[in-house]
Amino acid sequence: MKPTDMAKEGTEMTEETEHMIEKNGAKETENVVSAGDPKEMRAVILSGFGGLNKLRVTKKAMPEPQEGEVKIRVKACGLNFLDLMVRQGNIDSPPKTPLVPGFECSGIVEAMGENTKGFEIGDRVMTFVNYNAWAEVVCTPLDYVYNMPDDMTFPEAAAFSMNFVAAYMMLFEVANLREGMSVLVHSAGGGVGQAVAQLCSTIPGVTVFGTASSFKHEAIKDSVTHLFDRNVDYVQEVKKISPEGVDIVLDCLSGENTGKGLGLLRPLGTYILYGSSNMVTGETKSFFSLAKSWWQVEKVNPIKLYEENKVIAGFSLLNLLFKQGRCGQVKTVVEKLFSLYNQKKIKPVVDSLWALEEVKEAMQRIHDRGNIGKLILDVEKSPTPLMASDSTETSEAGEEEEEHEGDNDNKERMPFIQ
Amino acid sequence: MKPTDMAKEGTEMTEETEHMIEKNGAKETENVVSAGDPKEMRAVILSGFGGLNKLRVTKKAMPEPQEGEVKIRVKACGLNFLDLMVRQGNIDSPPKTPLVPGFECSGIVEAMGENTKGFEIGDRVMTFVNYNAWAEVVCTPLDYVYNMPDDMTFPEAAAFSMNFVAAYMMLFEVANLREGMSVLVHSAGGGVGQAVAQLCSTIPGVTVFGTASSFKHEAIKDSVTHLFDRNVDYVQEVKKISPEGVDIVLDCLSGENTGKGLGLLRPLGTYILYGSSNMVTGETKSFFSLAKSWWQVEKVNPIKLYEENKVIAGFSLLNLLFKQGRCGQVKTVVEKLFSLYNQKKIKPVVDSLWALEEVKEAMQRIHDRGNIGKLILDVEKSPTPLMASDSTETSEAGEEEEEHEGDNDNKERMPFIQ
Repeated sequence: MKPTDMAKEGTEMTEETEHMIEKNGAKETENVVSAGDPKEMRAVILSGFGGLNKLRVTKKAMPEPQEGEVKIRVKACGLNFLDLMVRQGNIDSPPKTPLVPGFECSGIVEAMGENTKGFEIGDRVMTFVNYNAWAEVVCTPLDYVYNMPDDMTFPEAAAFSMNFVAAYMMLFEVANLREGMSVLVHSAGGGVGQAVAQLCSTIPGVTVFGTASSFKHEAIKDSVTHLFDRNVDYVQEVKKISPEGVDIVLDCLSGENTGKGLGLLRPLGTYILYGSSNMVTGETKSFFSLAKSWWQVEKVNPIKLYEENKVIAGFSLLNLLFKQGRCGQVKTVVEKLFSLYNQKKIKPVVDSLWALEEVKEAMQRIHDRGNIGKLILDVEKSPTPLMASDSTETSEAGEEEEEHEGDNDNKERMPFIQ
Repeated sequence: MKPTDMAKEGTEMTEETEHMIEKNGAKETENVVSAGDPKEMRAVILSGFGGLNKLRVTKKAMPEPQEGEVKIRVKACGLNFLDLMVRQGNIDSPPKTPLVPGFECSGIVEAMGENTKGFEIGDRVMTFVNYNAWAEVVCTPLDYVYNMPDDMTFPEAAAFSMNFVAAYMMLFEVANLREGMSVLVHSAGGGVGQAVAQLCSTIPGVTVFGTASSFKHEAIKDSVTHLFDRNVDYVQEVKKISPEGVDIVLDCLSGENTGKGLGLLRPLGTYILYGSSNMVTGETKSFFSLAKSWWQVEKVNPIKLYEENKVIAGFSLLNLLFKQGRCGQVKTVVEKLFSLYNQKKIKPVVDSLWALEEVKEAMQRIHDRGNIGKLILDVEKSPTPLMASDSTETSEAGEEEEEHEGDNDNKERMPFIQ
């Protein structure tokens, strides 16, 4: 749904006003915001939890860096499946609305608060933020900011941070990927899937099994050893090729696959259930069915792990960063990844660039699993006029989502970071 | 209970005869078996599942190596807590009795079957076996046999195999021990505990937290950074020193500690539940209460692992070797350990040597947690006469065990290898 369609939804809009602090945010004139006012910036606002219609671009007060913070003029932001979950409020302890979504972006350092070392104005940086990424300007503690490699573009950097850091930590710090091992990754065409495939290629003799929609196979076949359609029984397909199973299973799908994933592990193998940004390519028809099965995950008996010599792990990069204070460890990983990038061993795959005003269409593309690699919000991009049919599709999906809003009753049980 | 006490138990003995195939095994004359007959050998026999009185030394037919097997003249055997569990039949799918217990030994190659390469008669070797270790001669597939370092004694080799291989694989292959990490190990004075402490000392800056009975502290204090009495609340003690917890928890205690162990993990930390030989120093009053809680282990919700960025693993070396065919991987580990041994970075701790005829006293010592390091059956050793008081102690413990035999109703649920 294009921003210009929002005017048609006046009735629904008025129902949201109790959640809306910035009343001026609902005006259509926001679509053309002057970049001249130094006290204001454009940002994507989620006015309340719900469908695509809860998103719009508005003006917000320009943030200024506090002590220990860096002020970044944003160029590109990453869009993740988690952002769809946030939009619905389908996360654990959801924050209050209105809010500015987004957990990662890249840009240029514009100012620094007191006691900030290691950065200078004009530096090209990428950063993790705990919300507020989808804006023209972000202020964030310097622990979360990294100087980008010279050759890396801003969209690449925004596509890089979440997906490659998560993939690296899962493969090399949670599991222990070594020569000759095998890895199964679902949604091999998604942002994490492509990062996993590329990182596996840096270790000799690693076999990658991947699932993806068939239409993506041609595009990604060089990065994955054995590709299966996402609708086939991947357990059978893997066992046909490797009867003993695989060493590492990365599962962003849902809890209903935990048993299957554990069953596919070779002795001493590791099953990793991951989510947050990595669920961007969740292979379920609707992310509501994904959400449902996600917290219905079956529990695991440690005795069975003992008998079978297996390992099960959970991985949430955002929790690690924003709840568990592991910035230092993540920084070390980012440096290793930048080194691999500079050696041209890895390269983020950008699916498409979208203007801030096109965030709904971008979300719909993730929802429909249309992407190969990462969707990026390009802050300086102007919206591309949509075809009438595109607009209709988006609208339908919005309605489908609204039907499920009763699911929010269970939102306290959702495992995502707030 | 000394072998000579067994004659007093005539009534109980007759109840066992239905399990006893080798009727002559009950005679006291077995204690002095002539080593001269090349068709016979001495071995410890478990006539049926139960108390200490089910064990005796008897003659068995001399085994001969099949194709791919090595025949070993045994010098020393390792005694593990698992052997106590086997004696009671408290293992998953217990094998048929009578049987010869024991899973590890060292000795000299005496003959080879067809198609055996890599060994010569006279080689000093150590080996894993799936039962039958406690005998003068063992025949075993060459995949499980390793040439010992020249400087290693036979008791050291028998103390080495299970404990150090398990400790190494848990620390470096299941978890990912690196510089600056912290490890909690229970029963720090036991065979695995001492192996863990020594292996941790090979990595710079690793902090080892350990629990052990207070009387062992003086003997092991140099190997463990922070020692706690096994009766204190180790969770509180660890948190006083390291509020954030530890990176690796090795838990051989029982399922009731799984929650505590997981709770003590730092983000990205690994909890490993291990058993089999490693339970040799289980810190519960009786191994029956241990057994009970062991399979009452609480199940783990993967969502919680996701939220907290934690890893839970099970590790069973015997399953890995004898059910899951990972001889090759274990061989690589053994080679790395021998290298560390040759560099004098590790050295197995032998608690005490026992004659085959003293197996009951040795088992009682493990049961009472009296050992520091490993108990070894020295095949060439003659029994040492016991003091009267020792005999009484043993007898009491035997009665205590008998009271709990009703627990065997649940033995199918026990997680040990058969």
